[in-house]
Amino acid sequence: MYLEKINSPNDLKKLNISELEVLCREIRQYLIDTVKETGGHLASNLGAVEMTVALHYVFDEKDKIVWDVGHQSYVHKILTGRKDKLASLRQKDGLSGFPKPSESEYDSFLTGHASTSISAGLGLCAARDLQGESYNVISVIGDGAFTGGLVYEAFNNIADKKILVVLNDNDMSISRNVGKVSLTLSKLRLGKNYNRFKSGMTKFFGSIPLVGKFLINFFTGVKNFFKGLFGANTYFSNFGIKYIGPFDGNDIKKTVKILTAVKKDLNRPVLLHLVTKKGKGMTEAEENPEKFHGISPKNHAAKEYSYSETAGKTICELAEKNDKIAAVCAAMPSGTGLEEFKNKFADRFFDVGIAEEHAVTFAAAMAKGGMKPFVCVYSTFLQRGFDQILHDVCADDLPVTFCLDRAGFVGSDGETHQGLYDLSYLSLMPNMSVLCPKDTEELKNMIVWAAQQNHPLAIRYPKETDVLFDSHSEIELGRWEKLADNKSDVTLFAVGGNMIALAQKVAQKTNANVVNARFVKPIDENMLLELSSDRLWVVLEENQQNGGLASQISLFASENKLKPEIRSVSVKDKFVPQATIEEQMENSGFDENNILKIIND
Amino acid sequence: MYLEKINSPNDLKKLNISELEVLCREIRQYLIDTVKETGGHLASNLGAVEMTVALHYVFDEKDKIVWDVGHQSYVHKILTGRKDKLASLRQKDGLSGFPKPSESEYDSFLTGHASTSISAGLGLCAARDLQGESYNVISVIGDGAFTGGLVYEAFNNIADKKILVVLNDNDMSISRNVGKVSLTLSKLRLGKNYNRFKSGMTKFFGSIPLVGKFLINFFTGVKNFFKGLFGANTYFSNFGIKYIGPFDGNDIKKTVKILTAVKKDLNRPVLLHLVTKKGKGMTEAEENPEKFHGISPKNHAAKEYSYSETAGKTICELAEKNDKIAAVCAAMPSGTGLEEFKNKFADRFFDVGIAEEHAVTFAAAMAKGGMKPFVCVYSTFLQRGFDQILHDVCADDLPVTFCLDRAGFVGSDGETHQGLYDLSYLSLMPNMSVLCPKDTEELKNMIVWAAQQNHPLAIRYPKETDVLFDSHSEIELGRWEKLADNKSDVTLFAVGGNMIALAQKVAQKTNANVVNARFVKPIDENMLLELSSDRLWVVLEENQQNGGLASQISLFASENKLKPEIRSVSVKDKFVPQATIEEQMENSGFDENNILKIIND
Repeated sequence: MYLEKINSPNDLKKLNISELEVLCREIRQYLIDTVKETGGHLASNLGAVEMTVALHYVFDEKDKIVWDVGHQSYVHKILTGRKDKLASLRQKDGLSGFPKPSESEYDSFLTGHASTSISAGLGLCAARDLQGESYNVISVIGDGAFTGGLVYEAFNNIADKKILVVLNDNDMSISRNVGKVSLTLSKLRLGKNYNRFKSGMTKFFGSIPLVGKFLINFFTGVKNFFKGLFGANTYFSNFGIKYIGPFDGNDIKKTVKILTAVKKDLNRPVLLHLVTKKGKGMTEAEENPEKFHGISPKNHAAKEYSYSETAGKTICELAEKNDKIAAVCAAMPSGTGLEEFKNKFADRFFDVGIAEEHAVTFAAAMAKGGMKPFVCVYSTFLQRGFDQILHDVCADDLPVTFCLDRAGFVGSDGETHQGLYDLSYLSLMPNMSVLCPKDTEELKNMIVWAAQQNHPLAIRYPKETDVLFDSHSEIELGRWEKLADNKSDVTLFAVGGNMIALAQKVAQKTNANVVNARFVKPIDENMLLELSSDRLWVVLEENQQNGGLASQISLFASENKLKPEIRSVSVKDKFVPQATIEEQMENSGFDENNILKIIND
Repeated sequence: MYLEKINSPNDLKKLNISELEVLCREIRQYLIDTVKETGGHLASNLGAVEMTVALHYVFDEKDKIVWDVGHQSYVHKILTGRKDKLASLRQKDGLSGFPKPSESEYDSFLTGHASTSISAGLGLCAARDLQGESYNVISVIGDGAFTGGLVYEAFNNIADKKILVVLNDNDMSISRNVGKVSLTLSKLRLGKNYNRFKSGMTKFFGSIPLVGKFLINFFTGVKNFFKGLFGANTYFSNFGIKYIGPFDGNDIKKTVKILTAVKKDLNRPVLLHLVTKKGKGMTEAEENPEKFHGISPKNHAAKEYSYSETAGKTICELAEKNDKIAAVCAAMPSGTGLEEFKNKFADRFFDVGIAEEHAVTFAAAMAKGGMKPFVCVYSTFLQRGFDQILHDVCADDLPVTFCLDRAGFVGSDGETHQGLYDLSYLSLMPNMSVLCPKDTEELKNMIVWAAQQNHPLAIRYPKETDVLFDSHSEIELGRWEKLADNKSDVTLFAVGGNMIALAQKVAQKTNANVVNARFVKPIDENMLLELSSDRLWVVLEENQQNGGLASQISLFASENKLKPEIRSVSVKDKFVPQATIEEQMENSGFDENNILKIIND
């Protein structure tokens, strides 16, 4: 086993190309064996094996690789001294599923959200050049992340920076790519030119020694020829970027050769286009890479994402009767439950790619033009559209409904993906109402209600749930629901099903009242006044404390001279690392004992 | 006077081309006469006269024009029944300086921030097509706004939508454009090809009748020829956009001809590149367009932007001694006070163009690479970088300092530009500290202090100030400053110079204590405990109530069983329209009498 001997990238350099080929097979097997147990992102890593090995083989320890998103960084982790910890992937205190500088000095920048790697790479280049250092900077970005506007902003500022951008093109971000950029890449990949080029180049490289300068000169020399064939060359040259490719990124020999050549002459921005196969080496993953994009741990029975499903199904049902209903998502039709809508109402379905800013402004204008759009995005990704929600939707009070999936704790994705900010960042926006259902039935009622409103609305719901209630009251703007009215002088105000379930457990032991605080904005002032003879109010919300419901309630109480003391069970100004959702809740004080202690304090 | 007879775009259609030429001169004079009195954006409108007249002449009342940013929409307002109101521009209850649907049905989408027009145009197209309507959609965007990533996201989703994008290219956004996109446009504008093309096309169009189809076919026919000449053509064709231009957008005759041709054949995305001269027709504005970008009303002595100046100057002084200090801005070196830094430390100065997302992630990585970047952006524009601040700066706890200029009320720019959200959207982020100085001297101290810290920081300050204090205490994390300790049982906690000035006026009449609450996060818990025998705390902050300081204080007070009642003087969940800053403060309850009433209630 070569893999056993690899404890740092320097160990790689002792191997020759044939040995690297064997190593790649070993890594692939190790990935399959481990990630099948731990869960995680298998397909993207299987596709990235040769590219990652080649990068570490050719470049030096001091060089900095920025992995866009980071789902594809497992091989990098294996090669940088963390292979033995791979079994702890995405678990509490284990290896992160993303590059994380606090975990290893080889992780040069924290990533998680898409399209940041080139901007980050340029920042590292600037720091390097200003401080007279000499490391190389390599940003590795998938074709899916290429649709984010941040990439374009970075290209526009790439100037003459010495940076290598590796486009890891597997024709597949999370779901199918959309848009014109994707089409252009497809043309490159699938066209006759690519294949002709590919076989031609293979022969060509087979016959010459490894002299990088020569290769690069070769590219420059035939630039005009390829310019005619490949629109991409012209596209990138508009930004002053030298475009090289496409090459087969699963061919370790060729990739090492190309990278060696590129490294020797990296004196300007270079984009290397590598085509890789997602799921490479595992037949079932190659054939169905979307299924193997993120897989669940073996011992963890995947719960159904019933909130997502309910949202998608309900929007479909509305669309049957109302042809103004449209749906917008950002590269996640499946994750947000919109597959059915996509199939049934193709003309009213808009997947804009990883481009949340555009999703929001586009939906705003659709609403302005008379439609009723629902924008279905994960809570954490909607952060990208913050200014657009405030400026394009709320300022003109437009009827866009945001369905924020994966709100609250999200488990193994950790810090970068928690949905623990939305209640705050949405509640600060005028004209916006913020809802959170107690279960999937109430989600359905909220979506139906939303379709009848004429203002901005956001409905946020978690990833998983086991909670289902018997009875459901009508949705009215700013009206909460009493679930347990025990005539106690303690009331628990709980936001969302998970918090309500917790509150109910506590109530069983204390007889406290439980309120389904299903509108985080506007708050139910009447109910608060009604309950103002209470001794204590405890507010439970899966959100940062600042800007959340508890702070709204406490200010209202103080301004209205209400008697109850208020306690907040929320996240106290910290990033919540990966663990199971249950562990994350417990570590953040969302547990029975803590709340009992608060009540009895 | 033709202008007198123009009350709607339909009136335009009664004029012939020669009459339009006269009308354009009249409009230009009217603009100069009026805007010199009212203040506003003169240069961009002077450049846009012919283009706007031509658009309304050629297109129909039902067609929808989306003006990017909107600074250039005054001519549009003059032509759409609002010319008599132009004297009320940017004043309380007067005409908005931006397109505003609530002001006129001719304003098809609310704008203010840059780069939204194409996404918005596509949303209108989708609504139109889904509802079987037939209006044209025209997005008019300046070359400056072209650097925003949202434009690229929109291009990627433009598919086969019937939309006309007019690129109003005046080689000048607010300041000089930066980046590669700008260079490409410059090449088009300034190169021999453009001039040759220009004169050739003039002759060509002079000799043929107005048959649009023919013109378009001509363009298609010679596509390959122009492709060689103009990189832009290939650039745009990557997105499936037909590129036409560049043409002289100040030539009314030619612009009408081109638009007529384009309109007749608008069955796919078309980008029309018009070159216009900012400040056209007013010698001083032509020569110095940046000075005339936004001008102050005649009777309003422009206050010095002393906060901006102090920020820029202090960062310069730090940079003299510390070569890790760098500065980043987004197309506003002058507005944010960084001109001196730009000149003195060109290699450490980064103007990324209108691209706040990139500015933030780029700065994060610079910090990761060992530098100490200051990001100087207007409060309202930093909203664009929300996700990047949270995800790229805060999650890895990187030492980036944000200097938020134009925080609080901003006066005549109105709803879209208020800096009334930053305290909330920054306070919700873990690892972030949020500061607000009482005067320019304290701003200086804060910046010096910030350079010594190793965490994310934000310092926000207003547009204008007259306030200057005699004494200044040392900056310490989370420590407030008692300004007037009157042994009263009422304490006023004021955020920033304007609020402190107001609090002091109130204190003179009531003997209340005044605290400079200069850290909005973390709050000074010790001082709160110390003052906990008070009867009443009044919190004054130029910010939305939700997520602001008052809500933090009230929750802290409640959780710690502190006695004082709390009242919030803040913006109550509403958008604040244009007016003077004084009027905006008064209308939002920031006046002596209101606060006296609160205290005596």
